[in-house]
Amino acid sequence: MLLRMSTLFVRTLREDPADAEVASHRLLVRAGYIRRAAPGIYTWLPLGLRVLAKVEAVVREEMTAAGAQEVHFPALLPKEPYEATGRWSEYGPNIFRLKDRKGGDYLLAPTHEEMFTLLVKDLYSSYKDLPLTLFQVQTKYRDEARPRAGLMRGREFVMKDAYSFDVDDAGLEVSYQAQRDAYERIFTRLGLEYVICAATSGAMGGSRSEEFLAPMAIGEDTFVRSAGGYAANVEAVTTVVPDDVPYDDAPQAHVEDTPGTPTIDSLVAHANVAFPRPDRAWTAADTLKNVVVALVQPSGERELLVVGLPGDREVDMKRLEAAVAPAEVETAGDADFAAHPELVRGYIGPSVLGPNGPEGSVRYLLDPRVVSGTRWITGADETGRHVVDLVAGRDFTADGTVEAAEVRAGDEAPDGSGPLELARGIEIGHIFALGRKYAAALGLTVLDQNGKAQVVTMGSYGVGVTRVLAALAEVNHDDKGLAWPANVAPAHVHVVATGKDEAVFAAAESIAETLSSRGIEVLYDDRPKVSPGVKFADAELLGVPLVVVVGRGLAEGVVEVRPRVGGTAEQVAVAEAADRVAELVDELV
Amino acid sequence: MLLRMSTLFVRTLREDPADAEVASHRLLVRAGYIRRAAPGIYTWLPLGLRVLAKVEAVVREEMTAAGAQEVHFPALLPKEPYEATGRWSEYGPNIFRLKDRKGGDYLLAPTHEEMFTLLVKDLYSSYKDLPLTLFQVQTKYRDEARPRAGLMRGREFVMKDAYSFDVDDAGLEVSYQAQRDAYERIFTRLGLEYVICAATSGAMGGSRSEEFLAPMAIGEDTFVRSAGGYAANVEAVTTVVPDDVPYDDAPQAHVEDTPGTPTIDSLVAHANVAFPRPDRAWTAADTLKNVVVALVQPSGERELLVVGLPGDREVDMKRLEAAVAPAEVETAGDADFAAHPELVRGYIGPSVLGPNGPEGSVRYLLDPRVVSGTRWITGADETGRHVVDLVAGRDFTADGTVEAAEVRAGDEAPDGSGPLELARGIEIGHIFALGRKYAAALGLTVLDQNGKAQVVTMGSYGVGVTRVLAALAEVNHDDKGLAWPANVAPAHVHVVATGKDEAVFAAAESIAETLSSRGIEVLYDDRPKVSPGVKFADAELLGVPLVVVVGRGLAEGVVEVRPRVGGTAEQVAVAEAADRVAELVDELV
Repeated sequence: MLLRMSTLFVRTLREDPADAEVASHRLLVRAGYIRRAAPGIYTWLPLGLRVLAKVEAVVREEMTAAGAQEVHFPALLPKEPYEATGRWSEYGPNIFRLKDRKGGDYLLAPTHEEMFTLLVKDLYSSYKDLPLTLFQVQTKYRDEARPRAGLMRGREFVMKDAYSFDVDDAGLEVSYQAQRDAYERIFTRLGLEYVICAATSGAMGGSRSEEFLAPMAIGEDTFVRSAGGYAANVEAVTTVVPDDVPYDDAPQAHVEDTPGTPTIDSLVAHANVAFPRPDRAWTAADTLKNVVVALVQPSGERELLVVGLPGDREVDMKRLEAAVAPAEVETAGDADFAAHPELVRGYIGPSVLGPNGPEGSVRYLLDPRVVSGTRWITGADETGRHVVDLVAGRDFTADGTVEAAEVRAGDEAPDGSGPLELARGIEIGHIFALGRKYAAALGLTVLDQNGKAQVVTMGSYGVGVTRVLAALAEVNHDDKGLAWPANVAPAHVHVVATGKDEAVFAAAESIAETLSSRGIEVLYDDRPKVSPGVKFADAELLGVPLVVVVGRGLAEGVVEVRPRVGGTAEQVAVAEAADRVAELVDELV
Repeated sequence: MLLRMSTLFVRTLREDPADAEVASHRLLVRAGYIRRAAPGIYTWLPLGLRVLAKVEAVVREEMTAAGAQEVHFPALLPKEPYEATGRWSEYGPNIFRLKDRKGGDYLLAPTHEEMFTLLVKDLYSSYKDLPLTLFQVQTKYRDEARPRAGLMRGREFVMKDAYSFDVDDAGLEVSYQAQRDAYERIFTRLGLEYVICAATSGAMGGSRSEEFLAPMAIGEDTFVRSAGGYAANVEAVTTVVPDDVPYDDAPQAHVEDTPGTPTIDSLVAHANVAFPRPDRAWTAADTLKNVVVALVQPSGERELLVVGLPGDREVDMKRLEAAVAPAEVETAGDADFAAHPELVRGYIGPSVLGPNGPEGSVRYLLDPRVVSGTRWITGADETGRHVVDLVAGRDFTADGTVEAAEVRAGDEAPDGSGPLELARGIEIGHIFALGRKYAAALGLTVLDQNGKAQVVTMGSYGVGVTRVLAALAEVNHDDKGLAWPANVAPAHVHVVATGKDEAVFAAAESIAETLSSRGIEVLYDDRPKVSPGVKFADAELLGVPLVVVVGRGLAEGVVEVRPRVGGTAEQVAVAEAADRVAELVDELV
């Protein structure tokens, strides 16, 4: 393959696009790989499409090697299957909905669990037909509230989604593991570092899920990991629950005036002076903060909730949302407090909440650290007053616990593998052991050995193909431009002819043709009236891994061969240039 | 490649799907190539997807060979560009429209002229950048009023669309011809008979367009052709206009009572008795029939129109719609006649129409055959009365002419190449010399040699990839099933192991593996408990071009090799089977 810059449909830009916050977005636009068509919706130009096709090819090969069979579903789908599983409403405003000319409701599918389930139901009926894993590489749609970072979070994007069908849990485990292994091979082949994190299942449902995150500072997901090998999306981290504390010797709770304590720090300082603990000083972790939020169900129903947690931690809204999904979380407003005069801002205590209050009290969930016997300073439901030595399990209870407190570096991993560190990454893959949710909702059963109908158990497995490309750009760039790994680069070699000498262009053309005839993919900068400086800058921006410069050295019979990043430039005799480049390409690919 | 029937995701059906009218639809569903997801929206199963990929590959190769560069646009697009060209409203209910969460208007693109125009405007600015031809293979959407015939007329389908950009008309002609040639190569390679027909441009606009039709009885397009090489879509046929007739000697028009003449035949019979022509008998072609219709503009505006044409021809609604596009045509109803009492049903004459009537009269267009000097019998605008010897040009005129009369076998070709015959076909490609419509509307100009801005001239070129696949299925089947040409078949060879003998399965497996290792694509029916009859029926239904049967002959050391259609079965020694099959595949591909 030989692409000539003189005719290639590309224009590089010297300026960053105004809306680009991250390097991959900036550089993919500047290098002419993509153009924005609408918010979160991009057009692929020839070079970008070549990279996308290579990423897709790796994904397809590994899916096929893992025994998955390729199919292709429509993007435009009727409402009914998604209504049967509840997702039509659960997705809320996050999906694109439309009506056809007859008034029928349709959606642009964000993912295809329902359709795969119905297809297998349509064709298969016996346990002998299973296991089965199907996949597609397909365009998906999500009406993101905040499309961002170019291809990282778009509204139209390419996904590989696979679905496994098994007759029992052991089969699902095997299918799940096969996909998990395939994902490891895919990202390894692409040279993309990944961390497999325990994750929450969100709107997808199911018993178990893991995310493949590519660690990078611009990632929008926070995850944790321990030296001992634990890794989890921050939404999925479970708190290490301390043992209950005996409270036989605890003093009785007492209400105190606490003037001039607008903050937790000032409250703690006041407490240590005015009503000191005999055993140790009060800390912020001894205060019980009660945070009021509103949950909005997909149906639109809105309900207040109070989360009680140690005063040294904040509520992490993403963890809370994951815990209460599919409900969304809003902050409580003036109208909410007006409707609930028992909630005294800044002084909310457990006694008016959940089971402690009268019937119809606001629902109350506690951080798992608030175990029986712990002693707290908390609001006394009157402005300017707190209650001290309020003991959990003795003086108050709740409607349950909730994983909503922020996770902090140094927290213990739930599996005992040591303290956690926090990092950021972007989700490039997500695998779900769905179980029987979709099959049950849509009636997918097969007859077992005994002729008895069994609900099929499923998994679903996604790779964000478009996002993988963006992640590759993000981790393979420098301040001059992109620097693709050879196996996804739009070409292997970028041949640059410099100057005006016809002999230079003839030699460059010959090298380009020779390489192309050997099956090496060549981008040849044959533009006659473009300066060497512009050509070199373009080569650095475009990011093809090997650059061959044919220029002044030709008078001495040499051309320069240099890698886009790392390594050093070599002067190679013209006659040996093709051989040497072929050798280097072999090493790279 | 080796696909095993024991695990392949396919189920063949013995029954035709209830909604399938045409063979390709019936067989593609029965053979497990596609499944219906919604009206006009289909899911591709593994075998169907393989065929689709092969058709796409041929299209891509020929586009690339013709110098077109591949890009990829979103399907979900904002309204604005389509509003700038007027197509947002012109498409009426034929496109899918939706709103995003912020209330922005979007559409699912039926074709991408606007976006390509804007992209080129975005990147290019000089005549030196042109010529340029871009293409994509992409999923398109049309909200068809009547999706039908399976993949033939769907609502979500794959199209190859290409767009050329030139600085002048001569350049457009070259680009147009290059695409036209590429289309000929594509359909020739696919073995799909085609006729290139002059066509109307419809909502697309532009100066010239040609359709590639695959002739077949189930086609929904009627086209004409002459022995001398003329071919046109029936909408595009222009009438051979007769010379004007001198009318100095024509008698004066006279109004006559014409009782009991409810039909044109009875009117003609009555005329020949009551007021015979001296030179020859009156015929139906001497009556002037005035047909009332209503035009509905995309804006919703509704206007009556009367079409005057010889009484021996009917109005062809598709021709009329093509002539008045983008307006749609409705039949006139009681309310229309009530609003226009001058239109006396069955007796409408020219005198109340268009320029002949008072100001505000209903618009009147004539068939081109109604030239000056022709003499007519037509309505006298009173029930039971007709006017005779009414001479065009002397006694009445019109607001213009319209190509709305039916085309009949035996009509003369407009280029003088002989009488026309009518045939049916389906549109598999359409090429348009668009000219400057889109570039002007969207401001795509380039600077010419003199530094002066020139509006770019464009062409657009579509292949209905999904429909090509359906057409291939339609013309390559028999009563037993599909019979694919080898270069698009899902596999080259279908190896069938029959019986229960383990030696048979071992030999079949070995042949399948050997062929696969040679790069031949093999579908192997390795199902252990399926009868030979079912396996043979499946092989005939699936339509792989070569069938190898390993069965009872194995005891004598032979297997049977037979083509799916035509030719005869050969008995081949087991040891030579792979060689012989490879030889036959080479001949076929």
